[in-house]
Amino acid sequence: MYSRVLLELEDVRKTVSSEELARRLNIKPAQVRKDLAYFGQFGIPGTGYIVSDLRRNIKGILGTDKQMVVGLAGVGNLGSALLAYAGFRKQGFEIRAAFDNDIRKVGKQWEGVKIYAVEDIPRIVKEENIQMGIIAVPSEASENVAKLFFEGGVKGVLNFAPTYLGGSPDAVTHNVDLTVELETLSYFIKKLDISES
Amino acid sequence: MYSRVLLELEDVRKTVSSEELARRLNIKPAQVRKDLAYFGQFGIPGTGYIVSDLRRNIKGILGTDKQMVVGLAGVGNLGSALLAYAGFRKQGFEIRAAFDNDIRKVGKQWEGVKIYAVEDIPRIVKEENIQMGIIAVPSEASENVAKLFFEGGVKGVLNFAPTYLGGSPDAVTHNVDLTVELETLSYFIKKLDISES
Repeated sequence: MYSRVLLELEDVRKTVSSEELARRLNIKPAQVRKDLAYFGQFGIPGTGYIVSDLRRNIKGILGTDKQMVVGLAGVGNLGSALLAYAGFRKQGFEIRAAFDNDIRKVGKQWEGVKIYAVEDIPRIVKEENIQMGIIAVPSEASENVAKLFFEGGVKGVLNFAPTYLGGSPDAVTHNVDLTVELETLSYFIKKLDISES
Repeated sequence: MYSRVLLELEDVRKTVSSEELARRLNIKPAQVRKDLAYFGQFGIPGTGYIVSDLRRNIKGILGTDKQMVVGLAGVGNLGSALLAYAGFRKQGFEIRAAFDNDIRKVGKQWEGVKIYAVEDIPRIVKEENIQMGIIAVPSEASENVAKLFFEGGVKGVLNFAPTYLGGSPDAVTHNVDLTVELETLSYFIKKLDISES
């Protein structure tokens, strides 16, 4: 949650107060001060916290202070949108290779990224030192693609396919469900309704 | 977090133990029992919690126990992927209208949803009783689109454009940043590295 808010703030603000952070996080200012003290960050009275310091500190905790090399499987609608997503590179995630089963796409480039066949995932992951795989293929293909990423030696996969994927002994799986974002909005709408009535 | 895990579980399991929930949420079983007691849910010894009961209860808290009518602005790569996303309808979110500036798309249907001009957002929101707007347009257009949704009277917008949007007095904005999903994966990879070394 802090990372998300600081991502929003870092382009527009140099400092932020615990009150402002609390408002955006929908928690109490005292909780913000407690949380940030736990990260070793203390606000300056009358000024607040330095956004860039907080952001660097949280990047260290998240392990995103170094560049991460990413492979993307599935260059359909969602995959194409992810390839074009400017935020990834800015935050240190470099999509170095893409993979698709469609022979019309294989060998081409999209947003400057070369597209390989899905069966080449293990080889390209090794050759290009890919650390993370993003899965944007249809549900029925997602498990096989995850297996190929694990075979290549990635440390984690981010799964956008609407099927829950388990992990592997040496790698982490993070399943994204976009429905949760709609539910979050629904929750805040409900709170707004309550506070208005 | 509970919603996300229960979404994953509801198709495959009837019951779940606090230990299993704790493992998936990466917290302690005692915390799970405390949280769920707060929701009024108590596990059955030797059986655990009924997944469908927990899910229904959390849907009530989130306000997603009723059907939500949604409008989608931007039928590019990301918008097309969201229109095709099967999870939304299943969880009670119905995309009833789409909007785009491209005159080649306006008047057509995509995944059974009619595409209107962006300028028609306020009118269609009223006519179709749209409660939520999803924004999947380029950054520079996102603020204007949000304004049109608010003008029509939506209660909230979900913004996928990589620009932070503020709220309005009568509506909620939830900004989605997909980079946060990559950061979450990065964090779990880092934890895995630490536990292995």
